[in-house]
Amino acid sequence: MTTATAQATVIGKEQLLKHWQGHRNLTRRVIEAFPEKDLFEFSVAGMRPFSDLAIELLSIGGPALRAIVDRAATPYSEEGIAPKTKEALLKLWDAETETINTYFERIPEEDFSQTFNLFGQYEFPIYQNIFYFIDNEIHHRGQGYVYLRALNIQPPFFWER
Amino acid sequence: MTTATAQATVIGKEQLLKHWQGHRNLTRRVIEAFPEKDLFEFSVAGMRPFSDLAIELLSIGGPALRAIVDRAATPYSEEGIAPKTKEALLKLWDAETETINTYFERIPEEDFSQTFNLFGQYEFPIYQNIFYFIDNEIHHRGQGYVYLRALNIQPPFFWER
Repeated sequence: MTTATAQATVIGKEQLLKHWQGHRNLTRRVIEAFPEKDLFEFSVAGMRPFSDLAIELLSIGGPALRAIVDRAATPYSEEGIAPKTKEALLKLWDAETETINTYFERIPEEDFSQTFNLFGQYEFPIYQNIFYFIDNEIHHRGQGYVYLRALNIQPPFFWER
Repeated sequence: MTTATAQATVIGKEQLLKHWQGHRNLTRRVIEAFPEKDLFEFSVAGMRPFSDLAIELLSIGGPALRAIVDRAATPYSEEGIAPKTKEALLKLWDAETETINTYFERIPEEDFSQTFNLFGQYEFPIYQNIFYFIDNEIHHRGQGYVYLRALNIQPPFFWER
């Protein structure tokens, strides 16, 4: 056994992308589950409605990967991402699915352990930045599940991706 | 460049454990943030109180890793995990931190891509099972954040692990 195989990959690049897109697919179904009006207006405990949480996610995934590929210090911004209907939000969501696939592919495997100062303020190894995108999505989607329950709507099964 | 280094690790075994334990540390602080009574009684929209969600997490992490190491078809069970106070719950949480460290270490790196039928019903590669444990924890903790907000309590910062 060589040193290289002894440091076996527990999670590879394609597995990580598939994992993320599986979560994005579930989040898409959570967006779909909201009634149009509630998507933009309903929340619990004064928190943001789910559309705002989705806009945050759209402002991270694609733009962040692009910044990683370009090593650009582009700051975080939600500007220009302001869908007014569920259909418009889902259209942005699907476009970002392609953007993520495209830019993720352009990150060489050996770069995942390199440090990058994302949005000019989060200086971590790239793999940790990508974990953060996924975790932040699961976190906010978990909040969306509570909103749906409070609306008496059955959320999609968590394990269905 | 050899074939082995071309299939570079984007996330290694120690990084995955550190990532998980970082999340567990945050969940611990969410448990701490609840008032004693609310931890066991409060919820939103008829969902389970946060103590029950924590008991679910305790019934997965340690027991599941043990089952993976032993390749045992032990079914999922919350039996015997019934803390009645926050202190007792945190004590179980800390004990499980050690259990997870111990059993995680015993999974050889090359096994992470092997399929295992967890709890006799979730047949996936081991790395996907472990991702599921982490994701499920983030998901439920996100619900706990809503409970805390509904209680007018500031949750710990999501990025602090």
